[in-house]
Amino acid sequence: MYIKPSIAQLAPYVPGDQPPKSKSLIKLNANENAYPPSLVVEELLRTFDYANLRYYPDATSQSLRRAIADRHSCPQEHVFCGNGSDEIIAYLFQVCFEEQDSIATPYPTYTLYKTIADIHRIHTEYVPAQEDYSIDVEALVKTNAKGIFIANPNAQTGLLLGMDAIEKLLQAYQGLVVIDEAYIDFAPAHASAASLVDHYPNLVVLRTFSKSYSLCGIRVGYCLADRSLVMALDKCRDSYNVSTLSQAMAEAALKDQAYLLSTVQRVIATRERVSQALQLMGFSVLPSAANFLLCTPPHDQAKGMYEYLITHQVYVRYFNSPRLSDKLRISIGTDEEMDVLLSLLSKYIY
Amino acid sequence: MYIKPSIAQLAPYVPGDQPPKSKSLIKLNANENAYPPSLVVEELLRTFDYANLRYYPDATSQSLRRAIADRHSCPQEHVFCGNGSDEIIAYLFQVCFEEQDSIATPYPTYTLYKTIADIHRIHTEYVPAQEDYSIDVEALVKTNAKGIFIANPNAQTGLLLGMDAIEKLLQAYQGLVVIDEAYIDFAPAHASAASLVDHYPNLVVLRTFSKSYSLCGIRVGYCLADRSLVMALDKCRDSYNVSTLSQAMAEAALKDQAYLLSTVQRVIATRERVSQALQLMGFSVLPSAANFLLCTPPHDQAKGMYEYLITHQVYVRYFNSPRLSDKLRISIGTDEEMDVLLSLLSKYIY
Repeated sequence: MYIKPSIAQLAPYVPGDQPPKSKSLIKLNANENAYPPSLVVEELLRTFDYANLRYYPDATSQSLRRAIADRHSCPQEHVFCGNGSDEIIAYLFQVCFEEQDSIATPYPTYTLYKTIADIHRIHTEYVPAQEDYSIDVEALVKTNAKGIFIANPNAQTGLLLGMDAIEKLLQAYQGLVVIDEAYIDFAPAHASAASLVDHYPNLVVLRTFSKSYSLCGIRVGYCLADRSLVMALDKCRDSYNVSTLSQAMAEAALKDQAYLLSTVQRVIATRERVSQALQLMGFSVLPSAANFLLCTPPHDQAKGMYEYLITHQVYVRYFNSPRLSDKLRISIGTDEEMDVLLSLLSKYIY
Repeated sequence: MYIKPSIAQLAPYVPGDQPPKSKSLIKLNANENAYPPSLVVEELLRTFDYANLRYYPDATSQSLRRAIADRHSCPQEHVFCGNGSDEIIAYLFQVCFEEQDSIATPYPTYTLYKTIADIHRIHTEYVPAQEDYSIDVEALVKTNAKGIFIANPNAQTGLLLGMDAIEKLLQAYQGLVVIDEAYIDFAPAHASAASLVDHYPNLVVLRTFSKSYSLCGIRVGYCLADRSLVMALDKCRDSYNVSTLSQAMAEAALKDQAYLLSTVQRVIATRERVSQALQLMGFSVLPSAANFLLCTPPHDQAKGMYEYLITHQVYVRYFNSPRLSDKLRISIGTDEEMDVLLSLLSKYIY
């Protein structure tokens, strides 16, 4: 009676695989980073004056916004920080879309866009990826949706949409364009749309500390956008949406670019090695610009492999959805972890 | 164009006084706790394995919910955790109210209810407090609003609404009743409505770690509610809404009830002493069940006093609003801080 029908009707939330943590378990199912965060984060935890926690955080995450603006050489007024980029996505729906509006997004992609759209009674129009799983930009524009959400590199596939295609999209389309660059640090240089924010006031570029900075646990994401949109997001956000320690840890990690670069390079090297190895075993593997691989095992063995791996304490991701159910999504772990995986796969196949 | 009109029209967010932090400054304007959090929180920061931050937090804050359920001797299914209780308030609007619905809330009270209602295009009906500033429960029920929000003890006034009045409200009213108990630990025993959640499925009791636990900075609040409402909140929340460290710090603090009790008792003792002292100086002071005092200085001097205190590095809260503009809201600091305040006030008056 006090729960509104549109919410009561939503499918109940199903949390992802949360395998019990154990030393022997190899967790390659959530695209978490293979390596710990920078040591500056540990140092911060050890030295942080806990007595300061009795005060409210800086409501506007000012110091962190400044550091992010420095990093992107953009005005601080273009930066908004959220309790994970998920929170920013939710705010974007509140700020830019009325009930019954539509967004367009490729299929497959990050399923959260539709989940949050559903909560806000906004319709999601899925635009099928092309045969090679690349994003069909023209079809997205043609939907006439009020906004387009693109993960780049794309979630699930790992494929990168080139800057040319993004600029073409921005020139052809006047609605809100959200480019979610959660995985962009694992892509080749100059793949980010961040510098376009200056030129296209309808562009929002999302970033997160979860992936390349190894900080899923602190829940900090940010976006770069026109200052009018940042002001609107500031009106809608919770008064203190990012905790004191999370602000401080994100800022500390941001400043250790040397560590970021070194872990990203290790992940990329492992990714390329594993991709080769899988192909030698008969997998087809999409070229990934992220910290995971979407691959098709030979002989339609995806589901069986997935289950076999679990019995050996290795968790990868299996999607029982159209165009994905013959595939596995494998996060890039350490070289040792990937060797265990490869050896199990080879046992399974031969 | 991509910002929806209802948001564009909202008044821009105005952050509260954030005086520059300095050792000499006395901050009595945000009802933060006078004392640091429990030492178990510091211990946790010192020993926490930072490498775990590369993983996502527990999406459902399961361990914290369990600890909260234990504390309240209630089923775990009655507990929901949020990124501060502010986030839970926002979710309640999403879950229970349609655009154009109304909520009723006393005036004066915590202004955030109206702020968040405005964002969701929900109308706020303010029900004036009685002459003695106590809440007019009958008038709230008569509004026929879809929900009633009551801070208890009330924000701004510090007054406690008795359990009798709350039960009467629940018996007379079928809509959603939110009792925000942010300050309840500073009230006399048995003032909480928590145990009523079992009997009234339309009751939500909000709690926070910000005040009595001295943990504003970690952003953790929770609510106790019927399991159907908790399930609905779980459908609407961000997938990982409470950070790993915040979950762990809240749980650690919760378990140190001895420390909670001792700081709460110190705050209450100081509050009673300061209340007496102010009355001796000619202030009228509302009886407070919270960690602050709402008081009326003699001779309509509130605004002048507020400004005078700032010039001496003491920040209290002045509201330029009806029925409050002749008053000051003073958070309870340490005894030393309150002595500085009292001596400044006495200088100003005489």
